[in-house]
Amino acid sequence: MHALLELPENLLSVQSFLADKIVEVESRFDEQLVSALPPVSALCAHIERYRGKMLRPTLVLLCGLATRADASQTLDADHITLAAVTEMVHMATLVHDDVLDEAEVRRRGLTVNKLRGNEAAVILGDFLIASSYHLCSQTRRPEAALVIGRASMDMCEGELLQLHHRENFSIDETTYEAIVRRKTGALIGASCRLGGLASGAAAEVCDALDAFGLHLGAAFQIQDDLLDLTGRERVVGKSVGQDAKTGKLTLPVIHHLVNADNAQRLETVRLLDLLAEQADGVDARDLAGALDTTGSIEHARREAVDRVEQAKSCLACLGKSDAKSLLEFLTKAVVDRAF
Amino acid sequence: MHALLELPENLLSVQSFLADKIVEVESRFDEQLVSALPPVSALCAHIERYRGKMLRPTLVLLCGLATRADASQTLDADHITLAAVTEMVHMATLVHDDVLDEAEVRRRGLTVNKLRGNEAAVILGDFLIASSYHLCSQTRRPEAALVIGRASMDMCEGELLQLHHRENFSIDETTYEAIVRRKTGALIGASCRLGGLASGAAAEVCDALDAFGLHLGAAFQIQDDLLDLTGRERVVGKSVGQDAKTGKLTLPVIHHLVNADNAQRLETVRLLDLLAEQADGVDARDLAGALDTTGSIEHARREAVDRVEQAKSCLACLGKSDAKSLLEFLTKAVVDRAF
Repeated sequence: MHALLELPENLLSVQSFLADKIVEVESRFDEQLVSALPPVSALCAHIERYRGKMLRPTLVLLCGLATRADASQTLDADHITLAAVTEMVHMATLVHDDVLDEAEVRRRGLTVNKLRGNEAAVILGDFLIASSYHLCSQTRRPEAALVIGRASMDMCEGELLQLHHRENFSIDETTYEAIVRRKTGALIGASCRLGGLASGAAAEVCDALDAFGLHLGAAFQIQDDLLDLTGRERVVGKSVGQDAKTGKLTLPVIHHLVNADNAQRLETVRLLDLLAEQADGVDARDLAGALDTTGSIEHARREAVDRVEQAKSCLACLGKSDAKSLLEFLTKAVVDRAF
Repeated sequence: MHALLELPENLLSVQSFLADKIVEVESRFDEQLVSALPPVSALCAHIERYRGKMLRPTLVLLCGLATRADASQTLDADHITLAAVTEMVHMATLVHDDVLDEAEVRRRGLTVNKLRGNEAAVILGDFLIASSYHLCSQTRRPEAALVIGRASMDMCEGELLQLHHRENFSIDETTYEAIVRRKTGALIGASCRLGGLASGAAAEVCDALDAFGLHLGAAFQIQDDLLDLTGRERVVGKSVGQDAKTGKLTLPVIHHLVNADNAQRLETVRLLDLLAEQADGVDARDLAGALDTTGSIEHARREAVDRVEQAKSCLACLGKSDAKSLLEFLTKAVVDRAF
């Protein structure tokens, strides 16, 4: 979120406050991963390169700010710690995802599995999960530990469900939603909830923040689906067309397969097979062309915008504040982004 | 520990009490892994087949019993929960170890990776880790969560250290001890500590129990090393000669390579290479024969017995009780076992 442009003038001061706090989150993150063992430190150092948008920590901090008892109150050590925890859980999933997808590049650098082998990558991912849980427990807040534990379980359930339906061309939008809710939504929802929790917000406010994060996560995932289909590699910063290559069905594809006539459906399934086989002469643009015949890309765009609106409506329980305005601004940015 | 034979008469009642409690631990374990998603439940059901000696939960319960304020006090729900947690953390490492070792058989059944692929096995392991943390946090004891988090980190560090030294023929006993302390000792130490913690034992008693577990874990690992070299497959219940095959240096091999003369050392390194390549005509018995020339198998046996004695001396802080006697009995059984 550092690179957020065109922010309204009145939000610049909260953005600058946030940027300072994110630096503290990064330090907390790095401190937790210090190891007395050189081979472990070397691997952890590599992880720092993975740092990206810092969406989850940003949400912990902003939800923490937006639920303070009064505007003069600042964020405390628990907000910083819990923000670092959410990023560490996210990093662990990236490291393991790269093993599962046999990915070679992440954020323009080589993946741990490519560089040091699958074994090191699996164990490093486990180390990150264990470290995140240990860091979370340092706040001595059992409620926070339960939230992180539950979100981590949900993420795995989402991954297992996705794996179960891989290359299942008759998956429906309900199943897609069940996967995304767990795989992407759960940790984003948990991040928002933890911000409220650390500020001592009421249970119903924490629930609303969690619901906000679930919708935001869904919008975020659908936008990722769209960028993988229609984005430009140099702008997105990672390979496009990966979903078709790894047999993951995305919202536009699912909508298309349900709504296409039989001939078109067969044609698209053939194209998906070719893309999965990485056959020459076909790419994501061919798929995007097919999906347009049923208005499926437009459908997914509308769905993402819809989820953004639902997310925003969950913020109604919050009083007016710059933090709330920035949350709303970021929410909209999720579907406007081209990267 | 169910199958413990030749237990002194006076310990039969505590053993029977323990057997009932282990059934409760198993129920707690299974309850935590119930999932609303059929593909997740199916994988978790497979995990039940992995249940083995239940060493870690047994230690939680026995250390819990041995540190009760008075002998009339029983074990409570937290002892049962924490016992289930230690077994779940252990299970997670077994599932991931089988992926890393490309193992096909575990406890006479097929491994998850063999049956359902590496992807499912990596995610299932992650699910078990997350579930164990979530279960641990249900006790609302931040201290317990920190112990489990730290032990899990240590285990990963031990694995990474072992991976770093794979096929390094000049590794010394200090490095071996550093690996074993983390890989095997940490969770066994944590299990003993958690038993004391749940009984409200003093900090120095918990520390002594942890130290007891570290020594016990080392003895256990050395005995495993020996069984992999000299055990009979049908008795051990898993393939023997695996350590040489996967390039893991064990205590007898390390002692031998340090103490053999140059010619013998070269000969043994050649043999280790052949075993790693799974060449025809050589097996673990050839290696055992070479190790005998420097008395290295005997050295490892003495070391295991020595660690058992050190473990027992850590129990000096405990008052006399049947639970303490059973702990001492089990400690000795670790180096007497043939499986």
